Amino acid sequence: MAAITIFGKGNMGQAIGDVFKQGGNQVSFIDRDDPVENLGAIVVLAVPYAAALAIAQQNQAQLAGKVVIDISNPLNFETWDELVVPADSSAAAQIAAALPQAKVVKAFNTTFAATLQSRQVAGQAPTTVLAASDHADAKQALAAALSDSGVQVIDAGSLKRARELESFGFLQMTLAANDKIGWNGGFAVLK
Amino acid sequence: MAAITIFGKGNMGQAIGDVFKQGGNQVSFIDRDDPVENLGAIVVLAVPYAAALAIAQQNQAQLAGKVVIDISNPLNFETWDELVVPADSSAAAQIAAALPQAKVVKAFNTTFAATLQSRQVAGQAPTTVLAASDHADAKQALAAALSDSGVQVIDAGSLKRARELESFGFLQMTLAANDKIGWNGGFAVLK
Repeated sequence: MAAITIFGKGNMGQAIGDVFKQGGNQVSFIDRDDPVENLGAIVVLAVPYAAALAIAQQNQAQLAGKVVIDISNPLNFETWDELVVPADSSAAAQIAAALPQAKVVKAFNTTFAATLQSRQVAGQAPTTVLAASDHADAKQALAAALSDSGVQVIDAGSLKRARELESFGFLQMTLAANDKIGWNGGFAVLK
Repeated sequence: MAAITIFGKGNMGQAIGDVFKQGGNQVSFIDRDDPVENLGAIVVLAVPYAAALAIAQQNQAQLAGKVVIDISNPLNFETWDELVVPADSSAAAQIAAALPQAKVVKAFNTTFAATLQSRQVAGQAPTTVLAASDHADAKQALAAALSDSGVQVIDAGSLKRARELESFGFLQMTLAANDKIGWNGGFAVLK
């Protein structure tokens, strides 16, 4: 059982909260104008990339020592043709740079909200959360918190792999936006 | 029915050849020291990235007007921690730059050889070929040639998306190399 604090009450924040609740964790939310206090050991930034980076920059002391989960897909939403982070970096790397005392994990950016809600990709395969971080204990804490949640977790390596996870999430979003897949479908991870 | 020429007789070349044969196409191979002649309308570079780029650079006249399919995953195989192409580019973009008169398509780099051979990802979901190109007619030719092949094809957008496809392929390979998934499994595309 872990205490989880989720910034953001959008589709992703609510779906992630539901998954953590099923996992037996204590879940609280921080909405746009709420005070940043009483944070759990695991903090999820379930807001768009620019907002997530701002939260990191403005709350370094509160987030020190926390497992901070970046779920963002930093698309240029005007063009849908590129990411807004440097090509040799990632949103997670930018957030980690702003939070040197936190343990940043990239996760949940490869799962559409509907696949978290249903725990299935297109009703055909279990939903898998891919997690990348330079902190093995942070990935273990996330996996433990999700062990009874109905979703699988796979360790995708160091935080450097966030770049590939963000490409993966970007590609998946463009396929859905172009009706090649549904927003309840996408990329399943089959062992 | 299309004439397909495959450079390379490795696992990928053979699996791709088998898929095209089932699709009713005429398939021929060019091995390392064979003369580059009698090329089909669709040419598959089923060799490692450095070799594919060299073939492109050395055979610009022979490949002019062809649909040229780049299947490479340009990993640094010493570190398994990065790609060898510039972060803001892709293997496919480099090959396309060497072949201004060809129609370059990125495809087959997201499917392990075993998933092409079996037409299934981990025995659970159909194998899907993701194809990116700036030439719509080239993607249509590929899709037509694969229509009865037992694998699905999805148009993944412009050749710019090769960068994401290569990140996708890279991530999938690192997961398999770390025993997180099997080499007959990986990322299925579920609609």
